[in-house]
Amino acid sequence: MSRRFHIKEEIRILGIDDSALISEKILVVGAFFRGGLWMDGVMSSYLTKDGLDGTDTLMEMVKSSKHYPQIRIIMLDGITYGGFNTIDIVQLYEETDIPVIVLMRQLPDFEMIDRALSYLPHKEMRSEIIKKAGKIVKVNTGDVNNPVYIQCSGIEMKDAATIVRISATRSNIPEPLRVAHLIATGIILGESRGKA
Amino acid sequence: MSRRFHIKEEIRILGIDDSALISEKILVVGAFFRGGLWMDGVMSSYLTKDGLDGTDTLMEMVKSSKHYPQIRIIMLDGITYGGFNTIDIVQLYEETDIPVIVLMRQLPDFEMIDRALSYLPHKEMRSEIIKKAGKIVKVNTGDVNNPVYIQCSGIEMKDAATIVRISATRSNIPEPLRVAHLIATGIILGESRGKA
Repeated sequence: MSRRFHIKEEIRILGIDDSALISEKILVVGAFFRGGLWMDGVMSSYLTKDGLDGTDTLMEMVKSSKHYPQIRIIMLDGITYGGFNTIDIVQLYEETDIPVIVLMRQLPDFEMIDRALSYLPHKEMRSEIIKKAGKIVKVNTGDVNNPVYIQCSGIEMKDAATIVRISATRSNIPEPLRVAHLIATGIILGESRGKA
Repeated sequence: MSRRFHIKEEIRILGIDDSALISEKILVVGAFFRGGLWMDGVMSSYLTKDGLDGTDTLMEMVKSSKHYPQIRIIMLDGITYGGFNTIDIVQLYEETDIPVIVLMRQLPDFEMIDRALSYLPHKEMRSEIIKKAGKIVKVNTGDVNNPVYIQCSGIEMKDAATIVRISATRSNIPEPLRVAHLIATGIILGESRGKA
């Protein structure tokens, strides 16, 4: 099921990213934005490295937030957080009633992912969640040499692409994700680095 | 000593705020901004609640940052961090060679501060640092009913006021400090709250 959107420049977006894999509990940071313009709030939680608690952790973080009633879109940076803690974006949408957009810098290498999953417990469940995330579509956010790839749940792909383009105001990455990445790495590593 | 500034809208500012007093080690967050426009980086460190290591901690955080050569202004939210860990803004300027602007929402209640300091070791040293921060000046950043107050070191008060006005793009508080506050409370309390 999808909904049609009336998309405003200031659409409220929660971008969620994780931090470096330096301990068993991985910090995840949510940056609550007005479109690609400015940040209205920050939230945080912890999930288990390579665990299975990612979907529940994000659901609880979102639903317990004072901003919950305002959030129109959840944006994720890929669907594996804290190593291979896979996020079920269909369940995340259904339980929060907020559509989810997954953003990737590259097309995922499913063969490599499949090999990596072999080393982890519950391989089938993780594979299932990855398959559920569905179709991957390329989006140009400005620089045609630097496209991004998206998946989504609870929203039509065309609307999802529009929201990604609207919110990518400073780079080819939507601002809520770019900033969530800066925060997560800045807090865990002492200084932000790399790209969302 | 002060320097005259050619002030651009995108002047690089590091805003530093601390988090809630819930442990002995207090998280401090630096948000590195282009003026009041957008964030280019995040840094973090820890100082001791009511300790004397605040100035050294901030100096080290700034000087070890990859952004150090670009930072034109350090902005602080008051001069006591982590309880009564007082920041020596003259020393911070001299050792980093970056001018410092201190922002306050209200005029400090020096009588109350003096009483509180009586309960802490090294009262004289802390009082001295507070006095060194110098003259306090009122600045209107837009809403005349909501002025802020500033102190500075290494920069003329007139230029400091201009920089505060330029960077207060979303509220009466300069964006680097507003965002540093959102991050520090969002990470330590699970969700951002209150005002910088």
